[in-house]
Amino acid sequence: MFHRVKDYRIDLRTAMRGGDGEVKIEHLFEPGSELLAPTRMLGRLTLKPGCSIGFHRHENEEECFHIISGVAEADDNGAKVKLEAGDSLLTGNGAGHAIRNAGDVDLVMLAVIVKYAEAGK
Amino acid sequence: MFHRVKDYRIDLRTAMRGGDGEVKIEHLFEPGSELLAPTRMLGRLTLKPGCSIGFHRHENEEECFHIISGVAEADDNGAKVKLEAGDSLLTGNGAGHAIRNAGDVDLVMLAVIVKYAEAGK
Repeated sequence: MFHRVKDYRIDLRTAMRGGDGEVKIEHLFEPGSELLAPTRMLGRLTLKPGCSIGFHRHENEEECFHIISGVAEADDNGAKVKLEAGDSLLTGNGAGHAIRNAGDVDLVMLAVIVKYAEAGK
Repeated sequence: MFHRVKDYRIDLRTAMRGGDGEVKIEHLFEPGSELLAPTRMLGRLTLKPGCSIGFHRHENEEECFHIISGVAEADDNGAKVKLEAGDSLLTGNGAGHAIRNAGDVDLVMLAVIVKYAEAGK
């Protein structure tokens, strides 16, 4: 199956995880119905200048942000890092992260969250 | 953890799945060591004009292609579709796909393969 930009379900999240401004999430496919794997989210996120996602942890799962365009300041489990188009951030296994649009154009990134397999299985 | 473009492990696949030309795979993170979830691949794929990935099926897993730039002709489990920047293709549960760079600039896409949870668990 395929989706075009106009097909994506959109979430607009204000103060996401305690961050600033708004985050637009375009869900590429629906977890649990279209996505049959343990993928909790598969989305394209857009943050306008000054907007951010606040610090939060990922337990028993991991999230990858892949920067498509723009410039981000990220908190990589306590370490500050500047990320640019093409860079990727991975956070899981109890670690945490935050991300802010530090530039003057939209920050666009792919976000993938995959849950860990259950222990002992 | 984060990786920049210069950090990605690169695979150059010739005649990938019986396709034409070459496919460059930049692995954003390493499955099984950096990626702890059941993610078999997380990569940025580049196909030059005329290059393709031949038709193949995904059993017990699913793959999403998200087009970052360029134009693709895809085979969506038997149906031909043109995909452009922003579009996404999902293939899993025994279905198959193929993809070709149908344009005159590089086709760049994110590819994510996640394995299904084992049955009965």
